[in-house]
Amino acid sequence: MDIEIIGRLKKICGDDFVVSDLSKIGNYLYDETEEYLKPEACTDVVVVKPKDASEISEIVKYANEILMPVIPRGGGTGLNGAVIPDRPGIILSMERLSKDIEVDGKNLMVIADSGVTLAQLNDELKKTKGLFFPIHPGDEGAQLGGMVAENAGGVSAVKHGIMRNHVKGLEVVLPTGEIVTLGGKLIKNNTGYDLLHMMVGSEGTLGIITKVILKLYAKQNHTGTLLVSFDSRQDASDTVPAILQSGITPLAIEYVEKNVIEEAARHMGLVWPAKEGIVDLMIILEEGTENDLFAKSEAIVEIAEKFNAVDSIIAETAKDQRNILQIRSNVYTAFIEHAIDGMDISVPPASVPYFVRDLDEIAAKYNTTLPCVGHIGDGNIHNFVMKENGEKPSWFEDIRLDIYKAAMKYGGAITAEHGTGKTRKSYMPLQYTAREIEIMKGVKRAFDPNGILNPGTIVDL
Amino acid sequence: MDIEIIGRLKKICGDDFVVSDLSKIGNYLYDETEEYLKPEACTDVVVVKPKDASEISEIVKYANEILMPVIPRGGGTGLNGAVIPDRPGIILSMERLSKDIEVDGKNLMVIADSGVTLAQLNDELKKTKGLFFPIHPGDEGAQLGGMVAENAGGVSAVKHGIMRNHVKGLEVVLPTGEIVTLGGKLIKNNTGYDLLHMMVGSEGTLGIITKVILKLYAKQNHTGTLLVSFDSRQDASDTVPAILQSGITPLAIEYVEKNVIEEAARHMGLVWPAKEGIVDLMIILEEGTENDLFAKSEAIVEIAEKFNAVDSIIAETAKDQRNILQIRSNVYTAFIEHAIDGMDISVPPASVPYFVRDLDEIAAKYNTTLPCVGHIGDGNIHNFVMKENGEKPSWFEDIRLDIYKAAMKYGGAITAEHGTGKTRKSYMPLQYTAREIEIMKGVKRAFDPNGILNPGTIVDL
Repeated sequence: MDIEIIGRLKKICGDDFVVSDLSKIGNYLYDETEEYLKPEACTDVVVVKPKDASEISEIVKYANEILMPVIPRGGGTGLNGAVIPDRPGIILSMERLSKDIEVDGKNLMVIADSGVTLAQLNDELKKTKGLFFPIHPGDEGAQLGGMVAENAGGVSAVKHGIMRNHVKGLEVVLPTGEIVTLGGKLIKNNTGYDLLHMMVGSEGTLGIITKVILKLYAKQNHTGTLLVSFDSRQDASDTVPAILQSGITPLAIEYVEKNVIEEAARHMGLVWPAKEGIVDLMIILEEGTENDLFAKSEAIVEIAEKFNAVDSIIAETAKDQRNILQIRSNVYTAFIEHAIDGMDISVPPASVPYFVRDLDEIAAKYNTTLPCVGHIGDGNIHNFVMKENGEKPSWFEDIRLDIYKAAMKYGGAITAEHGTGKTRKSYMPLQYTAREIEIMKGVKRAFDPNGILNPGTIVDL
Repeated sequence: MDIEIIGRLKKICGDDFVVSDLSKIGNYLYDETEEYLKPEACTDVVVVKPKDASEISEIVKYANEILMPVIPRGGGTGLNGAVIPDRPGIILSMERLSKDIEVDGKNLMVIADSGVTLAQLNDELKKTKGLFFPIHPGDEGAQLGGMVAENAGGVSAVKHGIMRNHVKGLEVVLPTGEIVTLGGKLIKNNTGYDLLHMMVGSEGTLGIITKVILKLYAKQNHTGTLLVSFDSRQDASDTVPAILQSGITPLAIEYVEKNVIEEAARHMGLVWPAKEGIVDLMIILEEGTENDLFAKSEAIVEIAEKFNAVDSIIAETAKDQRNILQIRSNVYTAFIEHAIDGMDISVPPASVPYFVRDLDEIAAKYNTTLPCVGHIGDGNIHNFVMKENGEKPSWFEDIRLDIYKAAMKYGGAITAEHGTGKTRKSYMPLQYTAREIEIMKGVKRAFDPNGILNPGTIVDL
């Protein structure tokens, strides 16, 4: 990286907070994208660690002068390569914007620096009288700003929705350098076009989030986990709307195929407690009283029995619940080392059994397996494309295309929660028309006329 | 309107569905905007009533050729003049797109033509086993597409949020004529930029909504209404977060000043049942069981007593509840005939008592009154600017500016739920910087390069 650029950045942020030595920037080049998918990082980059929005504004204004890409980087827990630099540029690490975090109990909101991690937020909330923030992606090292930029999801979308539903305000440094506040401690705001919602899920391409205002809720203290087993995917799937229509909204309704979850348990030296059937629903309840928890657990078992459930297990102790959750959480770890892609498709929830049947057919066509788990309550299925003899198979691109096309039959989405980034971008034309992508480019230009902010992510200008 | 244009439109929609006779278009020129605020409608317009997206696409393509504005019009229940033509153009009435409405119980969603009214939807949902749609603005004549375009709110935002939270998919005719589907029967979709959320609240300026996919929920059958009275606004306000922090989420928490609500009751020949104090909270609960309803009602009264409530009334019978709701709903009717503006400000919920104190001070400055009611649970206050001797006072613009500036002190919004339209547009610079408004114009251009769709609404190009 040009010595003049480094000098100018040091002038803005101080010598200690500009890193260009290749031996020290390794941790800033990649995120958690699967090995086989990630683009190779460009190493002609400089890492800057600004302390606030004002320094970021100066950096961005300078970047516009010299037309140098700026790549905002949060916790690096993303799965789509959005923060992997694919060309020379300035990596803007948000790690120092992690000091301020203020819980506003009267408005049931928190205002925090965007570099605050989810772990930090949850620690802070433990000090309150039972306030909590409901969104929880896999990794608590995720930063709040990154969670907004990626519109994080997770298992609890059935009850709590996704990140978008809980973002009320943002401080943003625009790609042209202005610092603006979008929304606020507001539940309702209908003035003008909603730039706040444009920012959610924009993956660092439309602005750099420097503060977040998130909605908080009263914690429901009684949680329970049920496993309900079925001999048929259709029965398992049909049970889901019957539960929701009965007025019960679980925190999560997870879909696990027995062979997949048993493999994940073996991998941990544990045993999956539900033995019967070929597929389980794992249902997590979160209720205000113990009575509600029991009543709803029983009601769910009754409903499942109407749909031919062959077994039901109610995990009552904290230890039993933790055991089940750990095995479910370990599916990713158990499979990803033998996989080359962990996909992230969404379909209408009721289409899940048809989509899973399609996965079987596609697997047979390529003489492989496509193990999957998923958030069936919200139609989000994660399936793995497996290696062949430990290597990337020759049909890797073909099978992914078949899988995406299968999802499109049901009006599905290429990515439900991981985001488009750099790794899913080329599949966008399967889901969107040329005119829609053209409009997206126009939106990008409206925010970022010089295209300096995280280029190569979501759309190419 | 040019005879050639009328001829071409008749060719697209049929002779019966193109109306240009001035005596017959009167019902298509205005919405429900206050008399003193509405712009004068341009009468050099033609009303077309297309039957589907395909005809709309043809109309829009033609309008691009001749650069003629197109004004999409729903139920005409809006309050901001968005559908009042301020220049020659084609009024596109959505009334015939009102046939298809399909409840999908398995996905807990409904897919409907955008011209279907809220009344039609609610009638259809009565046929289901207890599914409901939670958003309810004042008028059931609102069309679903219009409710999306205006991001409708209402009293139940505390529990159910706003329209945006429940829109999952849209079919849209873009301003350039392409017919696209945004989202779908999907709970999660993170592919590309979210054009669906850009469309919500865009007031017919970015696209013409022709189908909507909305989320449905299991109805909670037990509703109750509480009135809790206070001698102090601050106590009333402080009670609200205490209720929410306790884990109780009422359907609505309304704020009523005693003198305002008593006037509304008198206007109807009724009596407001709560006599004590100067301000009431009206709290509506909606629970799954009668036990929950009673337990939560009692818990709320206990909390309110800690904040010095001077009286509590639990309306148990359907008749008592209806009585209270009718009086509350009548506030608008009671005051609007003596008012020249019913404003729609939002502030952080905990700032409501400070903002109301500001309203008192501003009223004193102009020697008038500023009666207000509001959704205190979500910080949305509706205050009335009253006539002076039955006329628009000379200080009309000044007082509104003072009120908006007061709201801005708390990080508030010019419009919480009514939308920007034509009547609030000029105040946008109070809430947004020049660069933000410039970006909004860029977004508009990305969708609508010729600026033909509902020009003059939200932004001017």
